[in-house]
Amino acid sequence: MDKHKNIVLMEKDFAKWYTSVIINSDVAEYGLVKGTMVIKPYGYKIWSNVVKLVDKFFLKENIENCIFPAFIPYSFFVKEKNHIQGFKPELFKIERVCGVKIDDPYILRPTSEILFCNYFLKNIKNYNDLPMKLNQWCNVFRIEKNTKLFLRTSEFFWQEQHSAFADLKTAELFTKKIIFLYKKIFEEYLAIPVLIGKKTENEKFAGALITYTLETIMKDGQVLQCGTSHFLGTNFSKTFNIKFQNKNNKYEYIFQTSAGISSRIMGAIIMTHSDNNGLIIPPKIAPIQIRINTFFSNKDENIIIYANKIASKLKGFRIEIDSTVNQPGFKICDGELKGIPIQINIGPRSIINNQIEIMLRDGKEKQNYSIDIINKKFIKNILDKYHHDLFKKAKDNIDSKIVEIFNYDEFKKEINMNKVILAFWSGKSEDESKIKLDTGATPRCIIQSNDCGKCFYTGIKTKFKVYFGRSY
Amino acid sequence: MDKHKNIVLMEKDFAKWYTSVIINSDVAEYGLVKGTMVIKPYGYKIWSNVVKLVDKFFLKENIENCIFPAFIPYSFFVKEKNHIQGFKPELFKIERVCGVKIDDPYILRPTSEILFCNYFLKNIKNYNDLPMKLNQWCNVFRIEKNTKLFLRTSEFFWQEQHSAFADLKTAELFTKKIIFLYKKIFEEYLAIPVLIGKKTENEKFAGALITYTLETIMKDGQVLQCGTSHFLGTNFSKTFNIKFQNKNNKYEYIFQTSAGISSRIMGAIIMTHSDNNGLIIPPKIAPIQIRINTFFSNKDENIIIYANKIASKLKGFRIEIDSTVNQPGFKICDGELKGIPIQINIGPRSIINNQIEIMLRDGKEKQNYSIDIINKKFIKNILDKYHHDLFKKAKDNIDSKIVEIFNYDEFKKEINMNKVILAFWSGKSEDESKIKLDTGATPRCIIQSNDCGKCFYTGIKTKFKVYFGRSY
Repeated sequence: MDKHKNIVLMEKDFAKWYTSVIINSDVAEYGLVKGTMVIKPYGYKIWSNVVKLVDKFFLKENIENCIFPAFIPYSFFVKEKNHIQGFKPELFKIERVCGVKIDDPYILRPTSEILFCNYFLKNIKNYNDLPMKLNQWCNVFRIEKNTKLFLRTSEFFWQEQHSAFADLKTAELFTKKIIFLYKKIFEEYLAIPVLIGKKTENEKFAGALITYTLETIMKDGQVLQCGTSHFLGTNFSKTFNIKFQNKNNKYEYIFQTSAGISSRIMGAIIMTHSDNNGLIIPPKIAPIQIRINTFFSNKDENIIIYANKIASKLKGFRIEIDSTVNQPGFKICDGELKGIPIQINIGPRSIINNQIEIMLRDGKEKQNYSIDIINKKFIKNILDKYHHDLFKKAKDNIDSKIVEIFNYDEFKKEINMNKVILAFWSGKSEDESKIKLDTGATPRCIIQSNDCGKCFYTGIKTKFKVYFGRSY
Repeated sequence: MDKHKNIVLMEKDFAKWYTSVIINSDVAEYGLVKGTMVIKPYGYKIWSNVVKLVDKFFLKENIENCIFPAFIPYSFFVKEKNHIQGFKPELFKIERVCGVKIDDPYILRPTSEILFCNYFLKNIKNYNDLPMKLNQWCNVFRIEKNTKLFLRTSEFFWQEQHSAFADLKTAELFTKKIIFLYKKIFEEYLAIPVLIGKKTENEKFAGALITYTLETIMKDGQVLQCGTSHFLGTNFSKTFNIKFQNKNNKYEYIFQTSAGISSRIMGAIIMTHSDNNGLIIPPKIAPIQIRINTFFSNKDENIIIYANKIASKLKGFRIEIDSTVNQPGFKICDGELKGIPIQINIGPRSIINNQIEIMLRDGKEKQNYSIDIINKKFIKNILDKYHHDLFKKAKDNIDSKIVEIFNYDEFKKEINMNKVILAFWSGKSEDESKIKLDTGATPRCIIQSNDCGKCFYTGIKTKFKVYFGRSY
């Protein structure tokens, strides 16, 4: 019953700690087919709060939700040469229907650019139809050999946002806008500090001209790619001949973008905030923000009435009363395991002294307060501070992991210390590959520096800096 | 541009009318793979209003959402003998991974009883864990030869609700409760009158002891099965050995139920309410409840200000202002095509006379009102009446289609007139099959009558009446 006892110590084995937190806090478990995942009700509540958040921001950008099929004809998928090259090894295929081999197998979507292209082709006639900004929440499928809950599974869950524009500039600006929107969600709602920048040629999306990426650094120093926004230019529209009639009645190719974040975000939340006692969930997306625990010597109705009184004072927060007869220690541990930001403990003495005990999950602060000062504003202030404390702690961790280096020896030394490297870089794809082979590290994102410096690998002067790291 | 002109007359060809309404009102279109479907933004908004509604009612029943994988190992699927028999011809399979044949193919879920069974097996230990009531919104896959948008597609979208109970009685009551909950949603929110009852042995869910069904009768007299709730008893728990420890520390099999409604509901909405001018959407789920059309001789800012003034009086409704310079006729036709319940028309005269024109989609009523009486209550009353009128019209249609008969000759005659039959019935599975072969009609649902009567087919006395009809 005491599931928190099953959590592996983070310092002992980070990977096992991660899985043990997810399993024991009832966030998710593995499915029957290797590499698939069940998101359990508690995990779903966290995920659906993220979904609502993204939907809210997308609505402001006039991005409309829709649903596309999971099947893509193979013959369409191969048309965009770079796209198919990028996904070829990862495709699940339906090759027979009712036992009969079909000429054109169905791909289970690994992403849906091809389907949205077909939609744009059918639904865009002239400039009045542009921009067309669409999004879908769906499952996608990629064959993965080494799977890990939320981080890498054969089926995962995401939003993919596909848009079409009349001109290059608007499309490119929109691509950037989305990556900044993701950054806002991560930092202001999930309390996860991020790095954003461009991907290198090697690392960019198969079929994109530019890929902007959002990367986060986990407690173990490994980097997790958590969101991408792609400027596709006319790569796809030329392949699929998607044109619109402009104001001068001339036909032009549309410019396209796509972007997505996935259920991987759940892994980022867990590996950024949680600890050896279980989950720590940022308050803005916590399914339960406050749990009121009632402690009895023998079941006392007055305590439950008192708990309800407090709950009714705090309407609007996601609040839950645990009035079971379980032991105080059990209740508190369960609240910690589930990462509930605030636990309010009420026992017989609370009524006598008109005081309640407030425990914060992060830092485990415990303090008594007169019930008179408990109101919505008081709790909101606590949760706001809690959010900022989580963010600061995560930021301090990230900052402690990033090391600026100037030559390859330093690079190798720091990478082996599980650091993330920041360095001037002007290398080529072959150089990236060599470094990856040597050290296991890849360029995570490129940022533009104000000044120039010498590339740590080639010695060539450049304005570009790159974060390198080992990644999930 | 004038898409409403593309709508096929219902009287001419009901099937073509149906598809032309969906395509031209931008609700959905076919995907690239035969039998798949894209739900377009406007269709998605209707669908998501249904989803929110179901979620709201499920929350009241403490049913929790979760996400399960799309893949089921074939070896698990075959374990429940009736279940596999029912689905065998419809299964999509992944047979190779990275080109290599796998021993145990993955089925794309046609329904997820098997996966939930595995979940119950892992997550139910003792009576404290029961009842466990879960639901997921997902895509499911079934090979279909004759496909039709929303009604029958190779991939469709649904909620499947799977629950586990400690005793037979609670499980059976819950099965019934869900079918009544669906009825409430259909009648009180979608304005669709329904028939509910049990399925015959032939027609029940593969693996269920009892299937309750919700059936609706479309404008053409064909019956559409729109929701089912299954009492599975211990059929699955015995196969998968799912037991819980009861209060006396003895192990017992769990009792299971499952239930679902699907994107087929969109077809029911369209075929119940819509007409030759396009969609008619029930107001409680209409994405736009009110559209304010501004009519200009030359673009006049005052008209837009006036429209905004009205919109701000009606905050809380889903309201939209069309202030484009399109022709009045075009705007009105588009509002009709999209099935918007209320259109408010404002032109230069509206300001002079302080009057607006209100047009209702259903019945196309048109009337002028002084702006002074326009307020939330006034609009709410209109929408409430509109809902009741829709329901009544649909109910009248259903009632006109149902014919009570007493012998097989009458049966055949009425079925050929596209009627739905109500009759005493005590026939066997073989009789059902013969009738289906003769007439194309199947028993849609069984109801219990207060009195006894003679079965129209066998002549045997019985308390049971059955609705027979041709179905989608």
